[in-house]
Amino acid sequence: MDKNLNAISTIGEFGLIDKLTKDITINHKSTSKGIGDDAAVINKGKLETVLSTDMLIEGVHFDMVFTPLKHLGYKAVAVNVSDICAMNATPTQLLVSIGMSSKYSLEAIEEIYDGIKHAAKIYKLDIIGGDITTNPAGLAISITAIGEAEKKDIVYRSGAKENDLIVVSGDLGGAYMGLNILKREKEVWNSNPTIQPDLSGNDYILERQLKPEARIDVIKLLNELKIKPTSMIDISDGLASELIHLCKQSKKGCQLFEDKIPIDPTTHKTALEFNINPTTCALNGGEDYELLFTVDLKDYDKIKTNPNLSVIGHINNAESGTNLITNGGNSTPLTAQGWDHFS
Amino acid sequence: MDKNLNAISTIGEFGLIDKLTKDITINHKSTSKGIGDDAAVINKGKLETVLSTDMLIEGVHFDMVFTPLKHLGYKAVAVNVSDICAMNATPTQLLVSIGMSSKYSLEAIEEIYDGIKHAAKIYKLDIIGGDITTNPAGLAISITAIGEAEKKDIVYRSGAKENDLIVVSGDLGGAYMGLNILKREKEVWNSNPTIQPDLSGNDYILERQLKPEARIDVIKLLNELKIKPTSMIDISDGLASELIHLCKQSKKGCQLFEDKIPIDPTTHKTALEFNINPTTCALNGGEDYELLFTVDLKDYDKIKTNPNLSVIGHINNAESGTNLITNGGNSTPLTAQGWDHFS
Repeated sequence: MDKNLNAISTIGEFGLIDKLTKDITINHKSTSKGIGDDAAVINKGKLETVLSTDMLIEGVHFDMVFTPLKHLGYKAVAVNVSDICAMNATPTQLLVSIGMSSKYSLEAIEEIYDGIKHAAKIYKLDIIGGDITTNPAGLAISITAIGEAEKKDIVYRSGAKENDLIVVSGDLGGAYMGLNILKREKEVWNSNPTIQPDLSGNDYILERQLKPEARIDVIKLLNELKIKPTSMIDISDGLASELIHLCKQSKKGCQLFEDKIPIDPTTHKTALEFNINPTTCALNGGEDYELLFTVDLKDYDKIKTNPNLSVIGHINNAESGTNLITNGGNSTPLTAQGWDHFS
Repeated sequence: MDKNLNAISTIGEFGLIDKLTKDITINHKSTSKGIGDDAAVINKGKLETVLSTDMLIEGVHFDMVFTPLKHLGYKAVAVNVSDICAMNATPTQLLVSIGMSSKYSLEAIEEIYDGIKHAAKIYKLDIIGGDITTNPAGLAISITAIGEAEKKDIVYRSGAKENDLIVVSGDLGGAYMGLNILKREKEVWNSNPTIQPDLSGNDYILERQLKPEARIDVIKLLNELKIKPTSMIDISDGLASELIHLCKQSKKGCQLFEDKIPIDPTTHKTALEFNINPTTCALNGGEDYELLFTVDLKDYDKIKTNPNLSVIGHINNAESGTNLITNGGNSTPLTAQGWDHFS
């Protein structure tokens, strides 16, 4: 953290908002009114408006010791955008609330906001409003993402049908192993601050943890392939937990094949270093923000060779339960041991 | 606070969400999808969608010592709904994010949520989504309110014209004096816990502080009277600060008459007890959540005898500045000494 040379208290709340928001531009025709009034106005015409909100709390969702502030701002946007993507909708606008101590430097909050604005640029979002307040106890970021889609295109968690294929984007477990690396190096550093943290060779999984991406590209790809998933959810709490959610809301069961679960080599290697089963990482490690969805069998040919997508199982009737078929060929019930921060 | 008999950790996050949201019903035709998926979906057809978000933080916006939790939930909704009203829009939906320590009792968070649901019922809102997370440092509530209006009916801060009348709803300064009473009794209690707090005779101003109402009734009244304000803002930071905002965004000046500012007798009496000028309370005391707006002169006859509305001044050109005409007839520039929690 920078020294508190330029405390927020010297410019006041309105000064701070002005400073943070002066270079925000409006890109979407549907944004009738952005920052600067009591509320934001969006006009979606015939489109549906999709909204999602998430709160990130210091000490729960991130550790200030190893979280670059700009990445934190970026991630706060990405996790919300991921929820909009999981509806098969296009993210369009953001509302951003930040609570942070007046002891923070102005540079610190600007860095967070820079990350937010960078993400808004990458994901083509309008920041249309928000709130900034002091939070003596630490940093809290609450973001509401808004998106749009035609009614016929929106995909819910509840639409999976028997025999549908279960598909996941990207690879799983990386964000969790990135977190483990960061925690290990923090402990080393705490016990001996003269030792430089050893983060070498782990760029991929560190980025998965610190600066995850929402899979807008997958939504576009599905659209190009003319595939409408029958159900979809984003993976924030781990594959097992999300697949159970999806089956529960669709009133179906499933078979998930262990050997089909996509795991990056870095994740695999690091998991073994930490004496963790790589499959356990993929099933229960959270924060991958990949998309988990189901498609009709007829769409199999369109996706089978796509490097971004893996078919990992299929939907059964509810009575058969939600099961993992292990590498050894055994069937075992899936259990959600996802990241539940109240436990 | 109740004893921690029924800690949140025993039911987990999803159990908690289920428990809190199971009795939430959907009332608006425009709510295509509420709680239970990655994001909420609203379909406004030809109407504009209006959104506002506010974060309330323990120790900044409320003191747990004297804030009943149910009132806190109610207030968190009311302050957001007030922003939607200030656009001359009808509030329709809510997104609710709560960060609170897992050390809190389940009863505590249920009480907050009861207050939120009660407000949703009173204001006829659908709770369509949100987030619940731990916040080891204290309680944080972030709410996004969504409303709707026809494009032609939306009122911005920027539309005030020269000679327009300045109007305020209700009365001012009460919430601030309520806060002063609560702080005084907290100090008395801290120095001698055997003394019962003396809150008698102050019901009105205590309620103004602890359970303010958003003035949806005023929006309906204006609609019935066929008055579209030329500009509008809600009073969260004090009359002076908000009137300066309104004039700045409309590029105008104003004359505000001290003797026209509506102050309740309880507020007046309590201000004198505390050796505070009652006008100062009304100008700079925050959290009244009344509506401040401007109307064309031709609308004067429609409002002049309405007990809910007071004409307190008029709009001038920008060059003449934003001025208070005191009871003694002197003109003095308005200064915003509103509640700026970063100072």
